[in-house]
Amino acid sequence: MRKLLVIGIGAGNPDHMTVQAVDGLNRADVLFIPDKGAKKNDLAELRRQICDRFVTNPESRRVEFDVPVRAEPAPSYRSTVDDWHEAIAEIYEGLVRDELAEDGCGAFLIWGDPSLYDSALRILERVRLRGNVGFELEVIPGITAVQALAASHKMALNRIGDPVLITTGRRLTEQGMPQNAGSAVVMLDGKCAFNTLVDKDLIIHWGAYLGTPDEIVVSGRLGDVGAEIERVREEARKRKGWIMDTYLLRKAGEDD
Amino acid sequence: MRKLLVIGIGAGNPDHMTVQAVDGLNRADVLFIPDKGAKKNDLAELRRQICDRFVTNPESRRVEFDVPVRAEPAPSYRSTVDDWHEAIAEIYEGLVRDELAEDGCGAFLIWGDPSLYDSALRILERVRLRGNVGFELEVIPGITAVQALAASHKMALNRIGDPVLITTGRRLTEQGMPQNAGSAVVMLDGKCAFNTLVDKDLIIHWGAYLGTPDEIVVSGRLGDVGAEIERVREEARKRKGWIMDTYLLRKAGEDD
Ligand SMILES: C[S@@+](CC[C@H](N)C(=O)[O-])C[C@H]1O[C@@H](n2cnc3c(N)ncnc32)[C@H](O)[C@@H]1O
Ligand SMILES: C[S@@+](CC[C@H](N)C(=O)[O-])C[C@H]1O[C@@H](n2cnc3c(N)ncnc32)[C@H](O)[C@@H]1O
Repeated sequence: MRKLLVIGIGAGNPDHMTVQAVDGLNRADVLFIPDKGAKKNDLAELRRQICDRFVTNPESRRVEFDVPVRAEPAPSYRSTVDDWHEAIAEIYEGLVRDELAEDGCGAFLIWGDPSLYDSALRILERVRLRGNVGFELEVIPGITAVQALAASHKMALNRIGDPVLITTGRRLTEQGMPQNAGSAVVMLDGKCAFNTLVDKDLIIHWGAYLGTPDEIVVSGRLGDVGAEIERVREEARKRKGWIMDTYLLRKAGEDD
Repeated sequence: MRKLLVIGIGAGNPDHMTVQAVDGLNRADVLFIPDKGAKKNDLAELRRQICDRFVTNPESRRVEFDVPVRAEPAPSYRSTVDDWHEAIAEIYEGLVRDELAEDGCGAFLIWGDPSLYDSALRILERVRLRGNVGFELEVIPGITAVQALAASHKMALNRIGDPVLITTGRRLTEQGMPQNAGSAVVMLDGKCAFNTLVDKDLIIHWGAYLGTPDEIVVSGRLGDVGAEIERVREEARKRKGWIMDTYLLRKAGEDD
């Protein structure tokens, strides 16, 4: 039986790697690295750096592969995601079948933690359902951008005994601040959704490129720093060609 | 200036330790370990094991200390928490002042990640506000029980593009399943709050002692496994004398 490891590699700092993740990398015969040849892609580059630094197993090989780009969301968001996942499932199936021996072990390196806004586990489930290759799965957790954000701001995600909503920019725009949680963490926001909120007295704790040497953090009252974050974000995105940012929103006052 | 490291040590498996956390342990002159003398306490024991295994700095000392027990929640939950935190803040202040040189570095080892349902950062903020000892703070993220749960169930926390609510047993009982998130992760639940939910078609993914050799996981339709989880949980709690469990709830169907 083939074995597949889905390994969380942390959210930007190679030192986020856990002992378990390092062991996993070294148990694998093949390391699957997305974004083939993307020399200028910092994310692919970080995966390579992690392999260079932590892989000590001389038998292991790296296989880089291309990830298809997702079609523009039309006509339905769900159906484009569906097509896109099916296309990636076919690629994963090919990699597992062609690159791994029948009893081989392969590792997928996943940004942050595999459980948070990542499709690898869902896609591997599709591969399994397609029924052409069998495998055993093992998941190794990793530090998420959410924890990297909280660490950089030296703060708790939750108020005492209170819930936290982890959400996306799209949902924040649609739903506003949650009624059932004092704190909201927002990911996958390409449009500064925080600026669509009416309550300018909210406190925002924002971070981009968390854990990397380019990390930027800004905190303050939304009405005071919202425009500044938008400016800093746009300027950084232009300079580096990409950006990943995450933020926490919370009503002012109470236990702070 | 004194330096204090607040280090996430993962949620039960010593291999959750990150490279950054191991480095942090070894930068510290003093390692602060709660639950002095609690030989039979598995949690204190895990902290000691982590130090035994990862601390290579021969200069470092361990200081065990007692944590006061919280008074029963009365008359107001918030005021007992307040008194309790103030009592711990006094202890932390004493430790920092008496055990650390003026330019010394101390480390607090925090279960899981310091940002999730943990009071150390809030208490250190109190110590700072008391104004008697100054220090610089650094936070090192750790693997949470939430990620350990998802890894053991080999699943994502969120549905595609959908939010996740992280909440407590108490809040789940009060609020029921969230309307604004397809998935809810429940922590700090001593009373199997899932059994108070009306919708028995919810899917539950439950885990106790995650990441440890005693790990137990159960998944299924709430109506089918709810009573079994309660039984397994009670039996395990009696056998070991303590239990920590976390679970994910989600409506059946859709993208599963
Ligand atoms: C597709 S999701 C993947 C999340 C990842 N699995 C995790 O556990 O953090 C990508 C989103 O994660 C957040 N993110 C990931 N790495 C980040 C970083 N270093 N700094 C800020 N945000 C980050 C951003 O919100 C980004 O839009
Ligand atoms: C005070 S909170 C601390 C959470 C911790 N800071 C973290 O990041 O996971 C304690 C709760 O965490 C969860 N928990 C912590 N470790 C766990 C484990 N190994 N297995 C299951 N649940 C765990 C339980 O819900 C428990 O009630």
